[in-house]
Amino acid sequence: MAHIDLPEGLPGIVGPMAAYPESGKALNALADVLLRGPSPLTPAERELIATWVSKRNQCTFCTNTHAAVAREHYGDACGIVDRVLEDGTAAPLDDKMRALLAIADRVREDGRLVSDADVARARAAGADDRTIHDTVLIAAAFCMFNRYVDGLGTWAPTEPETYAQIGRMLAETGYGQTTGAAASLAR
Amino acid sequence: MAHIDLPEGLPGIVGPMAAYPESGKALNALADVLLRGPSPLTPAERELIATWVSKRNQCTFCTNTHAAVAREHYGDACGIVDRVLEDGTAAPLDDKMRALLAIADRVREDGRLVSDADVARARAAGADDRTIHDTVLIAAAFCMFNRYVDGLGTWAPTEPETYAQIGRMLAETGYGQTTGAAASLAR
Repeated sequence: MAHIDLPEGLPGIVGPMAAYPESGKALNALADVLLRGPSPLTPAERELIATWVSKRNQCTFCTNTHAAVAREHYGDACGIVDRVLEDGTAAPLDDKMRALLAIADRVREDGRLVSDADVARARAAGADDRTIHDTVLIAAAFCMFNRYVDGLGTWAPTEPETYAQIGRMLAETGYGQTTGAAASLAR
Repeated sequence: MAHIDLPEGLPGIVGPMAAYPESGKALNALADVLLRGPSPLTPAERELIATWVSKRNQCTFCTNTHAAVAREHYGDACGIVDRVLEDGTAAPLDDKMRALLAIADRVREDGRLVSDADVARARAAGADDRTIHDTVLIAAAFCMFNRYVDGLGTWAPTEPETYAQIGRMLAETGYGQTTGAAASLAR
């Protein structure tokens, strides 16, 4: 049970976002800029960073949700999202994404751990300033989202199909309509 | 030196916010809602939570900045901000703030560590649902801000007077104008 009273049946972050709409709106606006706004990283790549950070933080709701969105963006046949969930940076990624996931995991542990060597490795694989910036900020933001979800003790669905539905919705509409869309999944 | 090219002389988070204004605007909007929007917690109490989380994350720029803002809101004579920086939750706080800083530190370490007992202690000291929600979200958000600042290797001023100036500006204007206001401190 959550630590505070939340609207019944709304999963994960959707409950507190609906209960506290002023911060919910600001959080959705940030997610939309980071995951769907202009970036040298594709939405698929950005959702994969979000999934990886959430997995490493062991946040069930965020991991399953963003894995589902990433699968939509990559296309089901690819399987890369599940490989990253299983094998981390040992998954068959290109050099740039492998370097960026490594940076994201440093940020997740402690921002001060990002080294010049980490950044040089990403640059050698084609990452520019903006790519590095967006990776650091997405990783940092999911350290917030994960803690918001778990710090309030929110409820995470267990059925894979629920996440698949959320993934389809978010891949299609982005994060501007998250609360309303996910509310349609209320049980 | 920062890991990416940033406008010269802008301290801490102000550099990447100015260089990447779309995410900067979303981050400032979130900070303004969390630290200055409606809440049962005073701006002083919220800045103290932000300071405490930043201190525990060892983020120099955020600790010094939000300590300066909190001093402005509490009033210089009080000294409570410096007592918290020195002694943590052993500082002479009221029971509610002591319980909330403890919850904030759990969130900081890992959201899943917040226990029913932590929340019960805060409730016994007068914290309602919204107070607990706002504490969790502010703590989570500073886990993002701290990582953004340090993950990019931004520059932190060393002069206390610089932070005192920033503190006066932010206490007066809130976070809607952060980039412009802090840019006036560029050296």
